[in-house]
Amino acid sequence: MSKKISIEKKVLSENDKLAMEIREKLTKYRIPALNFVSSPGSGKTSLLEKTLQALSEEMTIGMVAGDVQTENDANRLVNAGGQYIKPIVTGGSCHLDARMVSKVLPEIDLSKLDLFIIENVGNLVCPSGYDLGEDMKVVLVSVTEGDDKPLKYPGMFRRSSVMVINKIDMLQLCDFDMEMVRRNALQINGELKIFEMSCRTGEGLDIWFNWLKSLVTAKKGQLLNA
Amino acid sequence: MSKKISIEKKVLSENDKLAMEIREKLTKYRIPALNFVSSPGSGKTSLLEKTLQALSEEMTIGMVAGDVQTENDANRLVNAGGQYIKPIVTGGSCHLDARMVSKVLPEIDLSKLDLFIIENVGNLVCPSGYDLGEDMKVVLVSVTEGDDKPLKYPGMFRRSSVMVINKIDMLQLCDFDMEMVRRNALQINGELKIFEMSCRTGEGLDIWFNWLKSLVTAKKGQLLNA
Repeated sequence: MSKKISIEKKVLSENDKLAMEIREKLTKYRIPALNFVSSPGSGKTSLLEKTLQALSEEMTIGMVAGDVQTENDANRLVNAGGQYIKPIVTGGSCHLDARMVSKVLPEIDLSKLDLFIIENVGNLVCPSGYDLGEDMKVVLVSVTEGDDKPLKYPGMFRRSSVMVINKIDMLQLCDFDMEMVRRNALQINGELKIFEMSCRTGEGLDIWFNWLKSLVTAKKGQLLNA
Repeated sequence: MSKKISIEKKVLSENDKLAMEIREKLTKYRIPALNFVSSPGSGKTSLLEKTLQALSEEMTIGMVAGDVQTENDANRLVNAGGQYIKPIVTGGSCHLDARMVSKVLPEIDLSKLDLFIIENVGNLVCPSGYDLGEDMKVVLVSVTEGDDKPLKYPGMFRRSSVMVINKIDMLQLCDFDMEMVRRNALQINGELKIFEMSCRTGEGLDIWFNWLKSLVTAKKGQLLNA
């Protein structure tokens, strides 16, 4: 048992070292970095498609799309206008780690980017433990999944800075209590910034786009003033 | 790397040994055993609630409900009429293993059961690798998650015997192609038995209940004739 723990610690510390290297590279180029995490099918790729379609004229977004199998998500992001998209097929692994991201990062010209987004494997447990060099994790939950998810998967909500509540156009068909999910999430992590949206109808997306723009502006200013 | 692999093999072989012991116990009492797996929020607990409500008069169903945190699911199953329900809180682990099930099994009087169901942690990746002594894995996918899930998470669909397509009442609000998901799933595993249902409206549930009844009858007959 102790051997298992020490090996786990070693793996994590190697991961943290690589994550720090990624963070340093992105910081050098003043690029905010987000790590998108959620259950399978919560709408990570849909939100990234909408984001590319809406913002590609005013900013350049690099993305890494992780999946256990297939490059479908990366292909969808390219079709949505993404110019700097790289797939990672984990081939079985339930999360991305910093080594996988490090490996594809040199294939993206960071000097061209204003924003960098990692789409993690769909899994509400395992990706929470892996720093990928991001500034913050963005956890998505769709109203069809139920309002109890923050309490049942607390690690992910504790380690995220932003919660996106997606598919609000389906609210009337679900036993989903918006106040309850907010209360449950803030009970786990009082610092969470919360967005409500529907990628299908577009409701709430403008607020999200504006927030992304402010992130980019802030990172540029923050470093110019440093 | 080789050390990591050998430890992983050892953990799995210990798991397989315990799973075999569970299987032997359940077989001795002629109890079919199902291991429910899916993404968080696909409707595992809802389907089990409906199953308990519909079948409790004619059969006794024991259930183990696993979650990373909270005993909410087990409480819901008790409220739905379940008499032999045990929670397992993994406290962070992303899947149930045979040791966890072994530990709670003595608390259930197997001589009273006609059917045994394990509700795994919501995770479409990690639980696929762990035999819990079940006769078959039942993988749920809800139409809100998208029809690409079998291709993106092939391990789970390969190791399952049954696929339940849930939330079909929401079909009109989703870009979900029923033929596509069937084709994708059968491409991964041509032996999959497929059910379509809505736990919310009740559509398709009768076929599911009848199948469960036939499972119980078959297991009794199979062993009486053995």
